Amino acid sequence: MENQLPLFYGLSILTAAIAFAFAAYLYLWVKKQRTVNQRIVEVSQLIKEGANTFMRREYKILAIFAGVVVILILLFLPSPIWSGDAIQNVEMALAYLAGTVLSAIAGKIGIMVATLSNSRAAEGAQQGIKPAFLIGFRGGAVMGLLVVGCSLLGVAAVLMIVGDSSILLGFSFGASSLALFAKAGGGICTKAADVSADLTEKVELGIAEDDPRNPAVIADNVGDNVGDVAGMGADLFDSNVAAMASALVIAQSLSGGEFANISMVFCYAILGLFSSIIGIATARIGKHGSPTKALNSSTYVTTAVFLVLTALATVLFDGFSWRIWIAAATGLLVGVIIGITTDYFTDDSKPIVQRVAHASRSGPAFTVLSGVSYGFISALPAMVGIAVSALIAYQVCAPMGDGYAIFGISMSAVGMLSIVGMIISNDAYGPIVDNARGLAEMGGLGEETIRVADELDSAGNTVKAVTKGFSISAAGLTVISLLGAFMSEVNDALAAAGQPLIIGFDIMSPTVFFGILIGASIPAVFSAMLILGVDRNAQRMVAEIHRQFNSIAGLKEGKPGVKPEYDKCIDIATVGSLRELIPAGLMTIIATIIVGFMGGPLAIGGFLLGNIVSGLLLALFMSNAGGLWDNSKKYVESGHEGGKGSKAHKAAVIGDTVGDPFKDTAGPSINTQITVVSLVASLLSAAFVAFSLFG
Amino acid sequence: MENQLPLFYGLSILTAAIAFAFAAYLYLWVKKQRTVNQRIVEVSQLIKEGANTFMRREYKILAIFAGVVVILILLFLPSPIWSGDAIQNVEMALAYLAGTVLSAIAGKIGIMVATLSNSRAAEGAQQGIKPAFLIGFRGGAVMGLLVVGCSLLGVAAVLMIVGDSSILLGFSFGASSLALFAKAGGGICTKAADVSADLTEKVELGIAEDDPRNPAVIADNVGDNVGDVAGMGADLFDSNVAAMASALVIAQSLSGGEFANISMVFCYAILGLFSSIIGIATARIGKHGSPTKALNSSTYVTTAVFLVLTALATVLFDGFSWRIWIAAATGLLVGVIIGITTDYFTDDSKPIVQRVAHASRSGPAFTVLSGVSYGFISALPAMVGIAVSALIAYQVCAPMGDGYAIFGISMSAVGMLSIVGMIISNDAYGPIVDNARGLAEMGGLGEETIRVADELDSAGNTVKAVTKGFSISAAGLTVISLLGAFMSEVNDALAAAGQPLIIGFDIMSPTVFFGILIGASIPAVFSAMLILGVDRNAQRMVAEIHRQFNSIAGLKEGKPGVKPEYDKCIDIATVGSLRELIPAGLMTIIATIIVGFMGGPLAIGGFLLGNIVSGLLLALFMSNAGGLWDNSKKYVESGHEGGKGSKAHKAAVIGDTVGDPFKDTAGPSINTQITVVSLVASLLSAAFVAFSLFG
Repeated sequence: MENQLPLFYGLSILTAAIAFAFAAYLYLWVKKQRTVNQRIVEVSQLIKEGANTFMRREYKILAIFAGVVVILILLFLPSPIWSGDAIQNVEMALAYLAGTVLSAIAGKIGIMVATLSNSRAAEGAQQGIKPAFLIGFRGGAVMGLLVVGCSLLGVAAVLMIVGDSSILLGFSFGASSLALFAKAGGGICTKAADVSADLTEKVELGIAEDDPRNPAVIADNVGDNVGDVAGMGADLFDSNVAAMASALVIAQSLSGGEFANISMVFCYAILGLFSSIIGIATARIGKHGSPTKALNSSTYVTTAVFLVLTALATVLFDGFSWRIWIAAATGLLVGVIIGITTDYFTDDSKPIVQRVAHASRSGPAFTVLSGVSYGFISALPAMVGIAVSALIAYQVCAPMGDGYAIFGISMSAVGMLSIVGMIISNDAYGPIVDNARGLAEMGGLGEETIRVADELDSAGNTVKAVTKGFSISAAGLTVISLLGAFMSEVNDALAAAGQPLIIGFDIMSPTVFFGILIGASIPAVFSAMLILGVDRNAQRMVAEIHRQFNSIAGLKEGKPGVKPEYDKCIDIATVGSLRELIPAGLMTIIATIIVGFMGGPLAIGGFLLGNIVSGLLLALFMSNAGGLWDNSKKYVESGHEGGKGSKAHKAAVIGDTVGDPFKDTAGPSINTQITVVSLVASLLSAAFVAFSLFG
Repeated sequence: MENQLPLFYGLSILTAAIAFAFAAYLYLWVKKQRTVNQRIVEVSQLIKEGANTFMRREYKILAIFAGVVVILILLFLPSPIWSGDAIQNVEMALAYLAGTVLSAIAGKIGIMVATLSNSRAAEGAQQGIKPAFLIGFRGGAVMGLLVVGCSLLGVAAVLMIVGDSSILLGFSFGASSLALFAKAGGGICTKAADVSADLTEKVELGIAEDDPRNPAVIADNVGDNVGDVAGMGADLFDSNVAAMASALVIAQSLSGGEFANISMVFCYAILGLFSSIIGIATARIGKHGSPTKALNSSTYVTTAVFLVLTALATVLFDGFSWRIWIAAATGLLVGVIIGITTDYFTDDSKPIVQRVAHASRSGPAFTVLSGVSYGFISALPAMVGIAVSALIAYQVCAPMGDGYAIFGISMSAVGMLSIVGMIISNDAYGPIVDNARGLAEMGGLGEETIRVADELDSAGNTVKAVTKGFSISAAGLTVISLLGAFMSEVNDALAAAGQPLIIGFDIMSPTVFFGILIGASIPAVFSAMLILGVDRNAQRMVAEIHRQFNSIAGLKEGKPGVKPEYDKCIDIATVGSLRELIPAGLMTIIATIIVGFMGGPLAIGGFLLGNIVSGLLLALFMSNAGGLWDNSKKYVESGHEGGKGSKAHKAAVIGDTVGDPFKDTAGPSINTQITVVSLVASLLSAAFVAFSLFG
């Protein structure tokens, strides 16, 4: 069989370049859209500066963190520098750095475009739904293209240069570190600002939502961008890299046909990006069309194109197996189905949201109880979907030989994530049009424009719930394959130490079981720490808002020319969120290390499993319950169950506040937490093999 | 080695008889306490009749359910009647019936004594804390002694008669069936009545809590008894039987020394009951003593006596191993430690409860968010405790030979449950003094008496949180050993079919993994169904309350002689709760059967593991969060954070309402759900071995 790998390296770089070029074109297109309203330009500028402040501070802290990790990698990974090959340590450290830097660049540019698009989308809404939709969507698409382009480029470059797939775990760990900061830090930031603005505006000061007198209002908009654009982008960058990295680690460990297998991983990633480009380029909406339909149909186009192209590739290329194609296709289809079922639980035209709104008539306790209940139930379809797709991938690929079954699962994750470019585009669209709506209001663009912006925003919320379910499930499949990658790393270390290999992690082994129980607790504790962090940070910001209202003369009265000190609130949101995040992040890493040095690889295998299982359950529960509450509130506000100001509305608002940190802080950060833990475990596998208390 | 087993059969029956005699003595002692206040006697009579109505209906539905199960057992278990030994099927069916009947008898008598004790405790409170405490405690102890006596007698009798420990799984399944009805059904009943009484009293009708005009007020008191006395008793009967049954199944499968091992299981159970008798008999309180201290010190006495006696037994008897003693002692000590950490999270003199109360100042969303967060964190110590005690038991007992490690874990569960007699006594004390407090108020016994009753009630709440953590953890260890019992049953079936035995459940196997993911979702869905059931049932009851207030002339005005139709509300609570329970119970059983026939024993192994892990996590989370909210409300009501009527109080009340079905319906029912699923899996293991789609 011919080695097609160089071809695919070349194609990877070429496709990434096309994606970057297309992103640049979209960026310029967005940029040339006009902005005339002075007030909008001014506020939009404030948001942009705030977001830049956040990113700068975040990257500064991250740089310190990354510096420490780089030194640790140089000293200890993949093996202690005094006992192994020092060059490998240098490679690993550089790969780690590359992972953080590429993700950071994508996030930085994404934020830049998003904060450019929001004002343009607001003004576009004056011309109707079509131009505003295109601005929002194309602004978001820049982020989608950059993230996928950077991840493909990075993975291809690392493997091409060092040739050893285990170094990719370092690259992937870099991406995860950044994602942890961006997603959880951004999540704490956005919700602390949101919550404190809500608390003070309506309750204490009696001013309207989004009133520019409130010092926290800009911090709130900044939070939307750093949490949902940069955070979500980093999260999916992380999942995408992790899926490819684990597939490549496993592919390289397979005996026979490894070139074809490695080529296949790249081929699927290339075609996924290519399909996303087609989906983005063909996104269209009629003059009075539905933005939700437009977003969904682009996703379906991308899915169909990917399935056809990968089938063609399977026919064309040597050693590409139909079995692997089935695994990848199953992953992708299950992902789409999970998205649709998530939609069922969170869309306000469906019965569940309406039932929660109805329960709100009896008071907030019933809003919370029914939301928690349906949130729990909503986890079931996704859990079954992940289980079934892993099972099908395994059964279909197992006949190909030893190790191919796990490879099949990892390709199922690659398949599910293949349309991630499209998913990120849809997702980043959300905060852009959300901001646009606020800007249209502040700029006084009139009722019709706000109605248009509202319609765009509502589509963003619906699609966001779907993409969230999708990204959690994709992370689920990815970490299953990371479990495979972990075992393969452990066996390399055992083989090197001349010890017998492990053949699996038996739950009847108390060491494995020990790990499972502790691993299962970690996502719960991690979520709790983040939620408490949001709470503490919001309290700090409330104090600052009070200080400004008391010390800045004329602010409360709205005297012309008197402005609040927005930057102080942005500062608090930024510094506070990163401060709250660090203990939570360290807790998960330290727990992994403790369990590893206590129980060795077996305990860690169990630990990862427990972490995945309870992490998936809690992430799905919290994301869906949060979306459900948010849309129940909107449903009541649109005139049902008594409408705005009714008893049901008050209860629904409380449900929404509970749901905020669930769906935007804790829920989607669990993904990253699982990936970080899995990668730490894989990277330290040799150390755990070398020493453990009772393993 | 001499066969000491007949000796232990004899001792088991003798100890059970002593427990029954002591229970009878306590019953007569309680009965001879005076009741003179006519109003109290009257209301207490209503509660008693209501509880009897509930029990009668529950047992009627259970009889139908049990009838169907008996027929299924006769036809199919342990093997289809046409292919196996018909006598075994008859034995299994009879054992199943015995399990339900013995648990039902204990529940019935327990309720009888509890509803007798409440009025006497109320009147005793007039003489001070000492007599009232003794009445409440001894009334509860009757339930404790009966439950443990019945379980010991039942297990000993079944094994003595049939000699085959796998028939014990049928007995245990009978106990679980009843527990599912009693705990989940009782839990729905009590919370539906509680919630609807709260909703209508304070909010709509403007009458005080426990106002006898409210038709739901008696249903609420009935609910306390059936949920907390009968339900908790059946739950712990179930755990205790399951722990012994799985230890005995494993003991019988061990090669060599099985008589000594079986004897040891009985010996530990006997000594546990004996220690509880001593603990109960020596429970004392000073004239102005603290009831919490009195309850706790009795628990410590029981623990110490048990450890000493079992150590003595290890010296005295042939073949009793110190390693097993260490396993059992570890289990018991870890149980005590878990109880103490639970107390830390739910006691209002400790910081956590106070922090949640403080957060309530910012509104109900913060009460909910901080309670959820600390609830998640509170699960960690218990999860670690269970993991560590399983690990220690395994490591200590593994050197004894093949299979002994799992036997060690099962003995760790037996050890943890050894003091269950004492635990149930403490637990049943709660609703008795809770009712007594209400009766003292309704009977107009004066402020001082109510203060005494309040102090007794508060001790009941604190101790209840501890015993709940304890019983969840004990169930956790038990189901680990049930997993061992399941594997031993599967291997029996495989050996009979001439197929290769399984050596474990590897999480890298996608079949196992498939089971894990689905198993982990079940407790979440089960909890959701119960919580939604409480909600629906409460809505029905609210409608009935409205009907009575509208149609019974003079009721709302409190015209003398006009009484509400209490029995209608009791009817709704009873019928409704059982109606809501059945789909939830069936869902778990059907899910087990579907997974089993899809993926065979490997998928079921994973399914059980996922079920245990997520079940433990959710049960601990919900029980502790519920207790935390309840006590935060009480803390605010006692004058902190603004006291009664403040904003913090309103928020804390909402937290408490959310917590009600968490802690009294869903949380503690998950135990039973896990046990039921484990037993169904073990009982059907031969069927899953014989047929599965891809197993």
